Amino acid sequence: MGTNGKNLIDDYRFDGSNKFKIAKVDAASKPFSTGNKADDNARLAEVSAKLDALQDVLYAEHRRKVLVILQGMDTSGKDGTVRGVFRAMDPLGLRVVGFKAPTPQELAHDYLWRVHAQTPARGEIVIFNRSHYEDVLITRVHGDIDAAECKRRYGHINAFEQMLSETGTTIVKCFLHISKDEQRKRLQERIDDPNKHWKFDPADIAERGFWDGYMEAYEAAINATATPEAPWYVVPADSKTHRNVMVAEILLQVFEAMKPQYPEGNPAFEALRIE
Amino acid sequence: MGTNGKNLIDDYRFDGSNKFKIAKVDAASKPFSTGNKADDNARLAEVSAKLDALQDVLYAEHRRKVLVILQGMDTSGKDGTVRGVFRAMDPLGLRVVGFKAPTPQELAHDYLWRVHAQTPARGEIVIFNRSHYEDVLITRVHGDIDAAECKRRYGHINAFEQMLSETGTTIVKCFLHISKDEQRKRLQERIDDPNKHWKFDPADIAERGFWDGYMEAYEAAINATATPEAPWYVVPADSKTHRNVMVAEILLQVFEAMKPQYPEGNPAFEALRIE
Repeated sequence: MGTNGKNLIDDYRFDGSNKFKIAKVDAASKPFSTGNKADDNARLAEVSAKLDALQDVLYAEHRRKVLVILQGMDTSGKDGTVRGVFRAMDPLGLRVVGFKAPTPQELAHDYLWRVHAQTPARGEIVIFNRSHYEDVLITRVHGDIDAAECKRRYGHINAFEQMLSETGTTIVKCFLHISKDEQRKRLQERIDDPNKHWKFDPADIAERGFWDGYMEAYEAAINATATPEAPWYVVPADSKTHRNVMVAEILLQVFEAMKPQYPEGNPAFEALRIE
Repeated sequence: MGTNGKNLIDDYRFDGSNKFKIAKVDAASKPFSTGNKADDNARLAEVSAKLDALQDVLYAEHRRKVLVILQGMDTSGKDGTVRGVFRAMDPLGLRVVGFKAPTPQELAHDYLWRVHAQTPARGEIVIFNRSHYEDVLITRVHGDIDAAECKRRYGHINAFEQMLSETGTTIVKCFLHISKDEQRKRLQERIDDPNKHWKFDPADIAERGFWDGYMEAYEAAINATATPEAPWYVVPADSKTHRNVMVAEILLQVFEAMKPQYPEGNPAFEALRIE
């Protein structure tokens, strides 16, 4: 599972050098699973402990920034990923930002304005639960923007993310990929449990009618914005356990590649004795 | 430990009905400890699981807000409390805000401006790591404000917190109380470990020279701002394990008293079948 993780992750990583075809990735597949749920959870605990230790150093280092973008259809498990994977880390250096339908004040600005305001500071890990990608997904699917405007936006997004990257931000974009049938099950579960009604919006059913349009829009957006500085990872997410393990493995690979270091000690401090 | 927690917490809770005398609370005492570290950690894990479940409902309820204020001298364990206690909860509904020396932009506003901007929204738990209380502590100790201005500020703070309370915020203010000797040990530890130098600021030594002034300022501020809506809890914090258990027990009492409930199910949803 973990030892050959690097090559395996590359198969699900899109940085512009290879084309992403959504139909070729099976949402029900579990490439990072051992086939045994208990073993998978043990691996998740093991990776979580490593992520926690690495985050501690990134925070101390106070130099670089990490931005994790979670995208996916309704019920794809964005909230569950936050809970299942990011709870391993110290809340001190972690911030989760959810982007919902924009407010009138937000709409009075450009669509990157509210997003830019929430980007990570030095030493911080920020998770976007939805993001500026909605502005080339929901808007495109509903025809609020045409193909030309959508293409312009891909350009804005690439320039924005390149700027973030060049000013010290490591960007990890995850598409949580579920099947239409898995979404049906999950929406039905929300309906069948009154304690989950708060998560259910009848508008989700109408949105589900645009499924094929969304798949096309995701494929197009991912291909247009997959770059070496801001790659997309496509995460088969019909299995929640697999999804958590895979996202954790991706983060582990990214954090380890960053090689965080504690700031150098200050020799001038060494002689100090506190009275 | 847990079963008689309620009465015990009351001895450390200040809401204006009883006077807080800092000299009467021994920072080295461990009223919430069993005397056995493993048992204490087991209790912390047990309380943490309950806090996690209660937070989940508070988040779903999306009605009330929780503001936890952590104050204490340098090295008193504010960061450690965030890590030790709040990591139990889902990062989705949790936000940690650290307040450092104000920026020029912040100083161009009133001292509650930057704080107000960070208060919790519905369903959210926000932890202030330092807070507006610095504006009646460090400023008072260094003579930047006189007694009359300090008194005016107590008034502003009480009015501000009352407004927050009346608009749906539950406020929990914790003073992490360490002894001067414990601080000496902890500062020395930071000096002796080069990997901890990033946490050490030589200015902390000068600040330590104002210890007695800080104790007076804390006693005065706590007595002036302890109200039923925004009580102070004084946490003996020389023992890190005890500190974590006690803060967790306080939060458990507060969360349980809030009696969070899932929003009522919508009967109109029940007949829905997702295709």
